[in-house]
Amino acid sequence: MATQATEVAAVKAPAVPRTIRLLVEYDGTDFAGWQRQDGQRTIQGCLEDAFREMTGQAVLVRGAGRTDAGVHAEGQVASVDLVSHIPCKGFLRGLNTLVPSSIAVLEVADMPAGWNARHDARGKIYRYCVWNHPVRSPSRARFSWHVYDALDTQAMRQAAAVLIGEHDFRAFRSADCDRKNTVRIVRRFEVRRDAALIAFEIEGTAFLRNMVRILVGTLVAVGKGKMTVEQVKAVLASGDRTQAGVTAPPCGLTLVRVIY
Amino acid sequence: MATQATEVAAVKAPAVPRTIRLLVEYDGTDFAGWQRQDGQRTIQGCLEDAFREMTGQAVLVRGAGRTDAGVHAEGQVASVDLVSHIPCKGFLRGLNTLVPSSIAVLEVADMPAGWNARHDARGKIYRYCVWNHPVRSPSRARFSWHVYDALDTQAMRQAAAVLIGEHDFRAFRSADCDRKNTVRIVRRFEVRRDAALIAFEIEGTAFLRNMVRILVGTLVAVGKGKMTVEQVKAVLASGDRTQAGVTAPPCGLTLVRVIY
Repeated sequence: MATQATEVAAVKAPAVPRTIRLLVEYDGTDFAGWQRQDGQRTIQGCLEDAFREMTGQAVLVRGAGRTDAGVHAEGQVASVDLVSHIPCKGFLRGLNTLVPSSIAVLEVADMPAGWNARHDARGKIYRYCVWNHPVRSPSRARFSWHVYDALDTQAMRQAAAVLIGEHDFRAFRSADCDRKNTVRIVRRFEVRRDAALIAFEIEGTAFLRNMVRILVGTLVAVGKGKMTVEQVKAVLASGDRTQAGVTAPPCGLTLVRVIY
Repeated sequence: MATQATEVAAVKAPAVPRTIRLLVEYDGTDFAGWQRQDGQRTIQGCLEDAFREMTGQAVLVRGAGRTDAGVHAEGQVASVDLVSHIPCKGFLRGLNTLVPSSIAVLEVADMPAGWNARHDARGKIYRYCVWNHPVRSPSRARFSWHVYDALDTQAMRQAAAVLIGEHDFRAFRSADCDRKNTVRIVRRFEVRRDAALIAFEIEGTAFLRNMVRILVGTLVAVGKGKMTVEQVKAVLASGDRTQAGVTAPPCGLTLVRVIY
């Protein structure tokens, strides 16, 4: 790194080792998720390619959350360690020119050395949108799950309340999640309805793989009257994934904010 | 028509000549506009194909407004004269199965014979959205125009007020609009701002070709400080298209409601 910094310094302003923070929005519809994968279009991959183009360096863009294929973000946060003289404004402009238009870098800021978007995150807020109407809505299709049957908002609120707090959420994670510790804290789980549009907003310390989507799938089962609030309590206690609801489709999910 | 009705009656419930009304929503991004055109994907074309599939008849689907390529609708209204025994609920379900998912038929209703969505319309409401921020917004990209420079909402409101009322709007129509009578009534023209999102909402009896988009392009010029409210008055009086603002892009425009 020192050699590279010296080389750049010879031509331009002194290049120094830096840690920068990115705030990123994306429409995840046409991506294979956040995480870089060979031969796939991913958000991390597009950002890393853009950095390479701007700096000549192969940098690692660490996201606070690895959103799945089709999941969106309004406030994904990432950290990058690199050696560069480019001002934050230059990165903001340059990255937005180089990444596809379905990604936007909203902010670029210098951070103290060693700051890490993933490890330093203290919480995350996700929103899940359901379009609850007999007919689909083309204008909301990319960002919501279309549920035909009328959902009982009040019952879903009661079920959401049961899930708030510190619990072992192993019943609400995908089969391929191999975390040993499955205890997580859900600080807030709200169900708001504006006519046919239902927004579930959940805040927690961290989430297991597919946890938010399985929680929403379970609340929707309650909303349809296929599961009771008591049954949701029992599923939580059982730790048995097969008793929980379906995994809600990715299109309805948005990473709203990462809390530090 | 009588023969056809008799034939159908032989098999199913009596088929009668009917006029039906459709309420239609669409994401116009991937369409060449409302109007049927050979070899192009249009909303009218998709609906007429679906009717043919359901009834075996080549029907005409008359839209209240012929939205341009890329323009959306939340409340397009269309009328169809046909001979059929299919109940409105059956059309609602069937049409939604047959048209692409970027179109949704929200309502189907029987109307008095001869009712015409186009001729009987007494007014229309359009909304135009501008994303006014230095960085684009991927989640709003399909339904808004991204304007980088900060816009002066107050100045745009003053200019909008000048345009309300009965005026000759020939300065605000596309070159290929050949209407003789260019006098139209704008009943309401509001400019609302919610942080970076600006919504222009306009209500009028009828609009000339591209009129809403040129009015918005002109207000945006005012918002940027490139044109004064006095100049907008002068453009209106001049009847000269070349003095008005640019035609705002279609993606920001939505036909919200047709008034009867």
